[in-house]
Amino acid sequence: MIIVFTGKGKGKSTSAIGQGVRAIGQGKKVLMIQFIKSKEFFSGEDKAVKKFSRKFRLIKSGKGFVGIMGDKLSRNIHQKAAKKALEKAKKAILSKKFDLIILDEVNVALSLRLIKLKDVLKVINLSLKGKDIILTGRGAGKELIKRADLATEFKEIKHPFKKGRVAKQGLEF
Amino acid sequence: MIIVFTGKGKGKSTSAIGQGVRAIGQGKKVLMIQFIKSKEFFSGEDKAVKKFSRKFRLIKSGKGFVGIMGDKLSRNIHQKAAKKALEKAKKAILSKKFDLIILDEVNVALSLRLIKLKDVLKVINLSLKGKDIILTGRGAGKELIKRADLATEFKEIKHPFKKGRVAKQGLEF
Repeated sequence: MIIVFTGKGKGKSTSAIGQGVRAIGQGKKVLMIQFIKSKEFFSGEDKAVKKFSRKFRLIKSGKGFVGIMGDKLSRNIHQKAAKKALEKAKKAILSKKFDLIILDEVNVALSLRLIKLKDVLKVINLSLKGKDIILTGRGAGKELIKRADLATEFKEIKHPFKKGRVAKQGLEF
Repeated sequence: MIIVFTGKGKGKSTSAIGQGVRAIGQGKKVLMIQFIKSKEFFSGEDKAVKKFSRKFRLIKSGKGFVGIMGDKLSRNIHQKAAKKALEKAKKAILSKKFDLIILDEVNVALSLRLIKLKDVLKVINLSLKGKDIILTGRGAGKELIKRADLATEFKEIKHPFKKGRVAKQGLEF
């Protein structure tokens, strides 16, 4: 099944992680490939999913935020990283080792045009029946949603940042 | 922080579980109290969160679906179960043992009027600064959202059930 989690609301990546936890509980194997997010960006899930050892693999393949938050890398570097992440996804799908593959923030990589939709579609179309792929990130396009079997839009109703708070460790990242 | 995950789209409970996993990765302690969901209803997360031993406790306090899916229990039994679940939440908050408490499907218990909003508000208002509570389930009312610091609506864009599929183990439950 192809699943898309999109929208500006909070909870897309965490929802995918939760799906992963659920799948593990059913004896399945999970791989999460993070686009955008880099190794330097420590996140709560990094440490926690290690508890599941080989059942929940997490690969951080991004180079950090693109064009914002003090990003000084060239666009080319971000593009290469995104292409590499997609290549890893392809290999993982072809290996048939994983029941659920999460392409975290891939929708953002797409909307920033770091990778092409047709290339992403090619990769996810390699997925066998009975295997699942979750694509997360805001800004998923209509064509991707058309291809998806299930899609949820995370709509922001209320967000504390707008009230002037700062990101909170363990909840926001 | 008081967080509400609502709407008809898929991913609310799993998002809360993912938040829990993230919190654990930051060395925090998590408790998930499930309203509606009963002990008889096995779900992938039951087994998986056990890996985290005491760091992620899961209590199933419901009596199953209310009024649907072959439910034969009296309304009174569901009400008692929901009140008991809320009582457990209160105790957990007062114990100060948990950094994140997830009240799973509490919004459904509220919209079915198994418990009263004023009682839920009383309980969550006991939560100390720096501690988090996530309330999940469709149908969260305006007053609850008003009280929340962060709220996300999970909007269903596409759902495979509508195309005639059956629930898939490990992904749907």
